[in-house]
Amino acid sequence: MVPPAALLDLLKTSSKLLILTHLNPDADGLGSSLALASALDRMGTHTLLADRDPVPGLYRFLPGSERFRTIEEIGAGAAGDVDFTRVILIDCNHIDRVVGSGRSFPGESRWSTVAVIDHHERGAPYGDIAWIVPEAPATGLMVYHLIKALGADITDAVATNLYAALMLDTGNFRYENTSAEVLRVAAELTEAGAQPHVIFSHLYELWPQKRFDLFLMVLNSLEYTDGVAVTTVTRKMLDKTGTSSDDTETFVSFPRIMKDIMVSVLIREIDDHYYKVSLRSKDTIDVAAVAKVFGGGGHKNAAGCTIRGDLATVKRRILGALQAH
Amino acid sequence: MVPPAALLDLLKTSSKLLILTHLNPDADGLGSSLALASALDRMGTHTLLADRDPVPGLYRFLPGSERFRTIEEIGAGAAGDVDFTRVILIDCNHIDRVVGSGRSFPGESRWSTVAVIDHHERGAPYGDIAWIVPEAPATGLMVYHLIKALGADITDAVATNLYAALMLDTGNFRYENTSAEVLRVAAELTEAGAQPHVIFSHLYELWPQKRFDLFLMVLNSLEYTDGVAVTTVTRKMLDKTGTSSDDTETFVSFPRIMKDIMVSVLIREIDDHYYKVSLRSKDTIDVAAVAKVFGGGGHKNAAGCTIRGDLATVKRRILGALQAH
Repeated sequence: MVPPAALLDLLKTSSKLLILTHLNPDADGLGSSLALASALDRMGTHTLLADRDPVPGLYRFLPGSERFRTIEEIGAGAAGDVDFTRVILIDCNHIDRVVGSGRSFPGESRWSTVAVIDHHERGAPYGDIAWIVPEAPATGLMVYHLIKALGADITDAVATNLYAALMLDTGNFRYENTSAEVLRVAAELTEAGAQPHVIFSHLYELWPQKRFDLFLMVLNSLEYTDGVAVTTVTRKMLDKTGTSSDDTETFVSFPRIMKDIMVSVLIREIDDHYYKVSLRSKDTIDVAAVAKVFGGGGHKNAAGCTIRGDLATVKRRILGALQAH
Repeated sequence: MVPPAALLDLLKTSSKLLILTHLNPDADGLGSSLALASALDRMGTHTLLADRDPVPGLYRFLPGSERFRTIEEIGAGAAGDVDFTRVILIDCNHIDRVVGSGRSFPGESRWSTVAVIDHHERGAPYGDIAWIVPEAPATGLMVYHLIKALGADITDAVATNLYAALMLDTGNFRYENTSAEVLRVAAELTEAGAQPHVIFSHLYELWPQKRFDLFLMVLNSLEYTDGVAVTTVTRKMLDKTGTSSDDTETFVSFPRIMKDIMVSVLIREIDDHYYKVSLRSKDTIDVAAVAKVFGGGGHKNAAGCTIRGDLATVKRRILGALQAH
């Protein structure tokens, strides 16, 4: 994984750089951005970090996370007089993924050079320099190579940010993208000061009790049909536990723990007679094809769609479509 | 981690070796034994693998696991005429941990040399050669160094067995014992053919449905008191789901996912008015001290004991002891 010379050149010759990551930011976007900013700062570059949303509480343990500004704050002049015309997009490859479709970033019209560093499939062409490596398990791994190529040190803060990025995008080294290289870099980051058990605890073991209560309600709704597990989240459950639909993140994956469950379906009530359906499958079962039937999409093993109707109808339709595939 | 010369000498000069691991074997005991046996076999040594219990279904994916003989089979002459007098104990450091307290292994009286390879704290002195490294995160890591020192290859089979050993004893790289070295060795094993996501799936994602049903019943029994989560497993729950107490393995760890839960207590009914209590804590809370009050023991963050009385009394006593500590 060799960073393009033009990218290295941009980083080495810029005295000021604006670093942006995607909306609803996660540990790969935030951690990769913070690691790069921290390395550049030590080289004497002045960096400004921003994204659309405030850093979620879950990720505030990332060293330097308090440096992130929201678009709103930037628009209101929170960055001071500093004028940034050189921009790096991290963990996304189009400005739409930063600001939201059809919107613009404050001062965007004055940007002179934009570089993109990402491991997602390329969408519409964007940026002057694009380093996009879809085979990379995490943008964090790309940024690791970038920092090495810059000759910067892997400090404690860099190590923790990059380790969190790798951990999140490999599911703590349990997904198929867990390569020898990811593990080797994780080892080096640990040597440099990252603490795997502490980062794990921050990312996976800090559920509020209300989220656990919701999880239990959702598990209790589980129905099995021919290798398919269906769970449901109603608005009533969210009300009763004081949770929001963000709290249901990862719930759909849990029933996969069962040997005979090949597909897990989570049906979330969004509005009257309006449901969001998340699908997770094992092995060769293609749930993206099933989601497409209802105008949705996704990847082979992780997809989603929305369906209108009452709950019984939604269940019947999705199970019918799964059967047909 | 350098294996003692006497151990290397024993392995290099023996034409026949009996390799034993502990009762209720796990991935560290089985995987380490299988990896060593496989390396020795390729060097021309004839190895026989045995333990008290049949290999649990969960671990039958380990390459070579079908080679394990139970003590009963060995006693009945399943090993043929081969007479083994040189013995290696893996992942335990006393023969009692292999056969069960006060029992003996078939032919034990004829043993000439016994070596011990283990990462558990040393109990009663045992064996002619003892390589015991309590700081090692897994016996699998010690066996890795041993195989290297022997100059044997890390084949696919060796890599998978050792990776499974490391994965289990570090909780898939989430416990405090996840060192840079463990990750570096995991990387090398992956390079040599171990598939992290496949091994993960075997160890953690193949629950039978009845186990999931039991898990749900146990979660539904959860009571919160001042940062302590108490869950209960009754014999009735096991009967109703057709499960055994083996199926409750790891349940006690789950409530730790909650931010405010500092101690998780699982109370398992063993007999009328007789309960087994498992304790898991976070950070500096020492549950071994609490278990000791009831004649039990363990480590700071993972301990257990048995208590007689009705369920309400058992709960009251254990919560009282936790409060006092």
